[in-house]
Amino acid sequence: MNITFFETAFKQIKNSIHHTPVLSNAYINKLVDGEIYFKCENFQKTGSFKIRGAGNAVFSLSDAQVARGVITHSSGNHGAALAQAAAWRGCKCYVVTPDMSPEIKKKALHYYGAEVTYSDVTLTSRIAETEKIIEKTGATFIHPYDNDTVIAGAGTVALELLREVPDLDCIMAPVGGGGGMSGTAMVAKALKSNIKAYGGEPELADDAWRSFTSGKLHGQLPARTIADGLRTALSERTFNYIQQYVDDILRVSDAQIIAAMRMIWERMKIIVETSSATPFAAILANKERFKGKKTGVIITGGNVDLDNLPWMEAS
Amino acid sequence: MNITFFETAFKQIKNSIHHTPVLSNAYINKLVDGEIYFKCENFQKTGSFKIRGAGNAVFSLSDAQVARGVITHSSGNHGAALAQAAAWRGCKCYVVTPDMSPEIKKKALHYYGAEVTYSDVTLTSRIAETEKIIEKTGATFIHPYDNDTVIAGAGTVALELLREVPDLDCIMAPVGGGGGMSGTAMVAKALKSNIKAYGGEPELADDAWRSFTSGKLHGQLPARTIADGLRTALSERTFNYIQQYVDDILRVSDAQIIAAMRMIWERMKIIVETSSATPFAAILANKERFKGKKTGVIITGGNVDLDNLPWMEAS
Repeated sequence: MNITFFETAFKQIKNSIHHTPVLSNAYINKLVDGEIYFKCENFQKTGSFKIRGAGNAVFSLSDAQVARGVITHSSGNHGAALAQAAAWRGCKCYVVTPDMSPEIKKKALHYYGAEVTYSDVTLTSRIAETEKIIEKTGATFIHPYDNDTVIAGAGTVALELLREVPDLDCIMAPVGGGGGMSGTAMVAKALKSNIKAYGGEPELADDAWRSFTSGKLHGQLPARTIADGLRTALSERTFNYIQQYVDDILRVSDAQIIAAMRMIWERMKIIVETSSATPFAAILANKERFKGKKTGVIITGGNVDLDNLPWMEAS
Repeated sequence: MNITFFETAFKQIKNSIHHTPVLSNAYINKLVDGEIYFKCENFQKTGSFKIRGAGNAVFSLSDAQVARGVITHSSGNHGAALAQAAAWRGCKCYVVTPDMSPEIKKKALHYYGAEVTYSDVTLTSRIAETEKIIEKTGATFIHPYDNDTVIAGAGTVALELLREVPDLDCIMAPVGGGGGMSGTAMVAKALKSNIKAYGGEPELADDAWRSFTSGKLHGQLPARTIADGLRTALSERTFNYIQQYVDDILRVSDAQIIAAMRMIWERMKIIVETSSATPFAAILANKERFKGKKTGVIITGGNVDLDNLPWMEAS
């Protein structure tokens, strides 16, 4: 994907989204003996960077498509983002979600105006329900990451970050389905050919690491990591991009993710979700690699259930 | 206190502190049907605005005073701030704190380099211990709020806020000992004579409200509000300033404080402490007064014990 594809996405969405701040912290920089630049998409509309991909996808629809609506089966940040982006164009948004998904996610979907359909928890059942609705309504399916238009939107985070801090040595993103990671790495390499692009991934959902190191796409085993946004698996498309543009994938334990998340909350006074703390956890676990370097870290989101904080479950 | 006093303080501290951001939130603005501008001193060095007053006090010392050190008996944000400010000038900082104060506060004091002495919990015992150290060392006592140099530093928050958003109709701060509130109101009235300055105060520590409405300084009854930064009482000095410059003091229950704090966390993705949520709680409890208005709210700090969040104690 050429850099102009990302620049076009940026032009398309930039007046609808927030320009999020890049934050640093003296304690953290001292601790890692380097400079970390956190690009704070937790402050983004809908609480995550997903609005960029969903926004780009919805703004790319024809009027005829808008009239028929959009649909997805992600109950998390992408679902909320798609609902919000659809609302911007006065477009219906269907979301198929397991009836057992957390109340807080259901509430967010309703808040952003999604038309929610409940299904069984299995992906098969969600896909079947989704296809039924598509057949009936003609809605356009917007996949959370296996979609170049969504990836182009996701990559605009790195575009903003590198415009603000052009001399980064490394850039990091969490790896779930691989859309954010792909967009980040593609943009970063286009703007600065010698930058290193690393992914942070939970050990308990390490399909990307297994695929990356073996050179062969591995599926996700049932993933029970606390980083619920990273339980999804790479697609052929995102695996391809990651093979081509990503330098390494660093795995961390759930305990490391929780400790990194807590450090960001305590030191930076910002609320970031478990997924977002994963790259920083990988930095803390691999300090030698980042010593003396300038590293950009994409904080993907801040949607957290304040009644269920991970250090409370752990204690 | 003349505005030049605050401007001098600002010149003295501005290169040592962060210029903190002013944040707004679409959901919150819609909810209150007005515009709220949060001045985020939770992102300030040491996690609170107290570094401004402590910094101004320490930078105002003579070299002879610096050689003898500074001392206070506040174990909270002022203690940590004074230790940090003292470290900037290579000055010793003594802090007298009850031995039963929370571990997290003791840790912060040590982190910033304070020389900590433990005393009994009563104020009498803390004062006695403090006087003993002063006698021995000649250290300069820096009161957390009954001190014009500290108040001048505290007022620089409002200076920054009104430079960034000059057309505020109202400005709000929490009221504890009244130093932050005094500085805020004095600066605001000097820069914009028709601005309204309001304080937010917990019902469970409402000495300022009782003093303000009766025109006579009342002491604090034993204060058990969850807003631990606001359990202190006005002094003659701060009561005087508040009578002269503050338009009203609005009281809120602890439940309202907790709900307001949680809304800021959930919607704005920033960590603010209970004290800081008090003015916003007062806005939510008095919506008619703020409808259609532009209101600046000083978020005084973000030092929170993540193992003891108030909605967890409450449940």
